[in-house]
Amino acid sequence: MPQGKLKVGVVGATGMVGIELVRLLDKSLLPIGELIPFSSGKTTKTVRFHGHDLAAPAPTTDSLRSCDLVFFVSSDEISQKFAPALADAGVWVIDDSAAFRLDPKVPLVIPEVNAGHLSRKQRLIAGPNCTMAPVAVAGFPLHRRYGVTAARISSYQAVSGAGTAALAEFFGQLRELMPALDDGQGAPVPRSPLASKLPRPAAFNVFPQVGRFDKGGNSSEENKVADELRKVWSAPRLRVSVTAVRVPVVRGHSLSTWLSFAKPVTPTAAAKLLAKAPGLVFSKNGDYPTPLSVGGENPVYAGRLRQGVDARELCLWVCADNLLKGAALNSVQIAEELLRRGWLKPR
Amino acid sequence: MPQGKLKVGVVGATGMVGIELVRLLDKSLLPIGELIPFSSGKTTKTVRFHGHDLAAPAPTTDSLRSCDLVFFVSSDEISQKFAPALADAGVWVIDDSAAFRLDPKVPLVIPEVNAGHLSRKQRLIAGPNCTMAPVAVAGFPLHRRYGVTAARISSYQAVSGAGTAALAEFFGQLRELMPALDDGQGAPVPRSPLASKLPRPAAFNVFPQVGRFDKGGNSSEENKVADELRKVWSAPRLRVSVTAVRVPVVRGHSLSTWLSFAKPVTPTAAAKLLAKAPGLVFSKNGDYPTPLSVGGENPVYAGRLRQGVDARELCLWVCADNLLKGAALNSVQIAEELLRRGWLKPR
Repeated sequence: MPQGKLKVGVVGATGMVGIELVRLLDKSLLPIGELIPFSSGKTTKTVRFHGHDLAAPAPTTDSLRSCDLVFFVSSDEISQKFAPALADAGVWVIDDSAAFRLDPKVPLVIPEVNAGHLSRKQRLIAGPNCTMAPVAVAGFPLHRRYGVTAARISSYQAVSGAGTAALAEFFGQLRELMPALDDGQGAPVPRSPLASKLPRPAAFNVFPQVGRFDKGGNSSEENKVADELRKVWSAPRLRVSVTAVRVPVVRGHSLSTWLSFAKPVTPTAAAKLLAKAPGLVFSKNGDYPTPLSVGGENPVYAGRLRQGVDARELCLWVCADNLLKGAALNSVQIAEELLRRGWLKPR
Repeated sequence: MPQGKLKVGVVGATGMVGIELVRLLDKSLLPIGELIPFSSGKTTKTVRFHGHDLAAPAPTTDSLRSCDLVFFVSSDEISQKFAPALADAGVWVIDDSAAFRLDPKVPLVIPEVNAGHLSRKQRLIAGPNCTMAPVAVAGFPLHRRYGVTAARISSYQAVSGAGTAALAEFFGQLRELMPALDDGQGAPVPRSPLASKLPRPAAFNVFPQVGRFDKGGNSSEENKVADELRKVWSAPRLRVSVTAVRVPVVRGHSLSTWLSFAKPVTPTAAAKLLAKAPGLVFSKNGDYPTPLSVGGENPVYAGRLRQGVDARELCLWVCADNLLKGAALNSVQIAEELLRRGWLKPR
């Protein structure tokens, strides 16, 4: 490996987020001398990096410890198994799973929002939930200036957020139903499609369940958004209420949000802040992003800024590619921030 | 025509709502002796009623005035042209268009909520917007008991709400895109489909625009929901904020709602009221309705009742078939209420 270059591991390199992550690393400014992809070990898929096709075996402790930096874009279980010991051994670990996000010792980082939570001594760093990240980026300039007291969020979440098997199930349902549908008569769609990877059929449907429900009736996704937003914004008393909904979209999460403040905030003043917010593309004058318009794009997008139920509340529509800013891109941005600080170096 | 039976006109009988309306009238308890369907006059479609196929010519003042009751399920313009003069001439008129809903002289009626607004002397009656109606039905028991002070609503609206041409455009986009999509790899969907009947492509997309935007940034649909909810609930000071979003669903509108009250309300107490609410099917214990499950069904459905951002707020998920309770069914229910009161009679 060339001197002064990094050895980087990617655990989950053949999954949906992993594919995006390797693609971003391939173009990134990180001085990567060697990329080592890992998978479950059950796939024959290879990973293309710097012009080479690389095999993706199952990870081992030794192979992971040989890296300077390891990205985890796999399951909570795999992260729990390897990540803490790896960080203790001096390897920088950027974990996109939910396993350590709420651990008080682990920084949960969205660089545009709270890069200051990074610490030279804490080498295990968590990335955020893909539904929470766009709200955190778009709402942060308003929170910092005016102090958000409550957030109400309805999500419109893409099927890709549930993984490759869920997406294949969705396409199968579409192919099953399409021939039976008349064009433009509006007859009800047959309820026949079976759903096993998702809690309800996704084709021609929406359903307010992402994850499992707790005793209070909130889903695990809704709790992640609330808990992680409080942590990333350092706002432990922020009141957050979320309804997380899956929609028949391939890629791109959208959010309908209401942000409440202690004092009046005008849409005009808020628009000025959003227009210069890092990582955010803000649309004015009734223009707005959609999942189709943000698919494959890096930034968070927002539009339709309006007053909410009173002068102390704003309404904002937010979209982002759930595989990018909500996952792979944010992980790469954390690594770039570590490099900028001079903390990430070949060992 | 048999004595003691009603002569009933349907303006817009060959449209999506009209087809449902005639189907409901065919099975209804209304003593209909003769049904006269009308269309734009440009279609050769016929309307089947009581076993006969009926032509649907363009309406004329004379043909409409021969009826005891006329349903309008056409455009605002057609209702404006015919409805007021017809009601002045003594014909009962149930208008599903938006033309007269906010006219202070015209009752806007959802029978489960405000049948008391009907008057023997006001023969022009308006039916509600299809997005507002489910919220009005599901939230009314809570409003009557506890007094809703503010409502925040994100909608998930079916393409059928935009009419037959929009639905045909949506299916065309799906047929164009399906072959290009890989199964389960999550690559971004091409942005190629053209949209002319809707403001953005509907396939694999969601977009927060239903109607046109006003100067404050609200869409006409969002204003309808707010204004009509205040009128139907007789709550002129109710604060309402809506984000109306089109989703790739054929039939069935869904709503993610937050209802705020002046005093604390527990989900347990609210659930008891909702379980016995007229016209509502309420799901407990984490079960919930979806567009696929409510398509073709008459009631409004609700579930996922939870506490909102504080003890004075509840979250509720609501679904209904937009062509039925939001349109055709509500109109038939108004007519049945007029019959029950002895006001609707053959002349």
